[in-house]
Amino acid sequence: MKIASIETGAGPSIGVHDDDGSVIDLRSLGADVPIDLRGLLELGPEALADIGERARTSGTRLDPDEIRFLPVVPHSHAVWCAALNYPTHVKEGNWEPPSAPPFFLRVAGSLCGHLEPIVQPSVSDRLDYEGELAVVIGRRARHVPPSEAYDVIAGYSCFNDGSVRDWQRHTTQITSGKNFAGTGAFGPWLTTRDEVEDIAAAQLTTRLNGKVMQQTKIGEMIFGIPELVNYLSTICELQPGDVVVTGTPGGVGARQTPQVFMSPGDVVEVEIDQVGLLRNPIVREES
Amino acid sequence: MKIASIETGAGPSIGVHDDDGSVIDLRSLGADVPIDLRGLLELGPEALADIGERARTSGTRLDPDEIRFLPVVPHSHAVWCAALNYPTHVKEGNWEPPSAPPFFLRVAGSLCGHLEPIVQPSVSDRLDYEGELAVVIGRRARHVPPSEAYDVIAGYSCFNDGSVRDWQRHTTQITSGKNFAGTGAFGPWLTTRDEVEDIAAAQLTTRLNGKVMQQTKIGEMIFGIPELVNYLSTICELQPGDVVVTGTPGGVGARQTPQVFMSPGDVVEVEIDQVGLLRNPIVREES
Repeated sequence: MKIASIETGAGPSIGVHDDDGSVIDLRSLGADVPIDLRGLLELGPEALADIGERARTSGTRLDPDEIRFLPVVPHSHAVWCAALNYPTHVKEGNWEPPSAPPFFLRVAGSLCGHLEPIVQPSVSDRLDYEGELAVVIGRRARHVPPSEAYDVIAGYSCFNDGSVRDWQRHTTQITSGKNFAGTGAFGPWLTTRDEVEDIAAAQLTTRLNGKVMQQTKIGEMIFGIPELVNYLSTICELQPGDVVVTGTPGGVGARQTPQVFMSPGDVVEVEIDQVGLLRNPIVREES
Repeated sequence: MKIASIETGAGPSIGVHDDDGSVIDLRSLGADVPIDLRGLLELGPEALADIGERARTSGTRLDPDEIRFLPVVPHSHAVWCAALNYPTHVKEGNWEPPSAPPFFLRVAGSLCGHLEPIVQPSVSDRLDYEGELAVVIGRRARHVPPSEAYDVIAGYSCFNDGSVRDWQRHTTQITSGKNFAGTGAFGPWLTTRDEVEDIAAAQLTTRLNGKVMQQTKIGEMIFGIPELVNYLSTICELQPGDVVVTGTPGGVGARQTPQVFMSPGDVVEVEIDQVGLLRNPIVREES
């Protein structure tokens, strides 16, 4: 099941993607069906599958032109992002390999949805892409052993951890440069876990204006999905709609020779096999 | 005006503190009055003052024993915390003075309210206090010049940026050790800006079991409130209920000889002149 957070003329809703490419508006199923992703996830995977079936048989199909994509989880309580989690990225930056996952957090306002513009801030021309896999948590969980980590995962999405490189280096803490308004992208939809045969075997590709800039197998991560979930769930209770963004591979723009940054008019894509393709144009912040 | 987010037998509400120490339940004013802090702040300072007046003349006073304090902003979109923002703390850690404010974020679940237990996690016995001033944002604002920063501030509160020191040092990014469930405290209430004559002149004191561990004038900050608000509002739009936690002075437990950490049975207090007194007992995480 592919579940998108969308905005239609009638307000925020949920769009379920059918195999033929059409999008079904969950609002059309009636008031007993939540039309926000957190609410849907709280029902659990079986109820969610039932809703998907109801949508396909009796829901209203939307004109794709009427849909605006929101971030997959529009107001997540927690978007945890792992830094330095692929050997190729650690190597290109000459960093020390971390002995634990270095996490930072992103606020909801720093993210946009599929096809929405990523915003180059007025104070910097060093806006970089970072293609990543996002893992969306499906149920409340604390102290999850690595062997049970996949049980708490609702599904996957693509993520562009857009980074303002100069602000990221103002201090030892990279949080500020990772949180500029509208610099990250999260979409196009949640692909539920049952639709992905082997996430470790899936390939992630980042393209800037059609050119491949990053490419990796998800399984190349330093700290795998089970370890990330175990580490975070030791710190706090994970909740439906929390997001674990799993790090970027080598090939970021700041480490190219010459350096490559995203500029207004560019189009950036993050594609992950079986999960989806996230595409965003770049615009300059309006001043 | 002193405004607390509270839980009563009837559910979450807002308590307005009267000069005689009694607490008035905003729920008693009727359905047109928001009973969540973000909703109240969105009305603006004048409407808020009117509601305070209505509360004092016609609201229901609560039995203090029936109140449980929530974090001042229970589900803030963004709790920004400044690290290394007092010279005494920079010096005790032998750090380099930062050239910009090093910010990290805390998730809502890492915080508790006044008198609620701060939780020592099961995986660490290195839980440290950090007494700080919290600034609560009152209106939407982007690119705020330092000279206008106070205009966007609704008021102040006390904050204990409880830190799990070993996990904070797992990597270069301190976010993980700053986000253990229930390790921070935020309260007792929002003291609106008009009630504080000169926040820079106010004294902050942290006590552990009655002993003074930290004491500073707020004005000793490296980056003052105007600079912090200017920096953050360059990154993103500030919203009502966003929180800027302004850093801790010297005297943290990890830098004492011998080191001092908080243990079950301890009581920790953060007091700021004219703002309030935040008190929390320490308990061990239930396993």
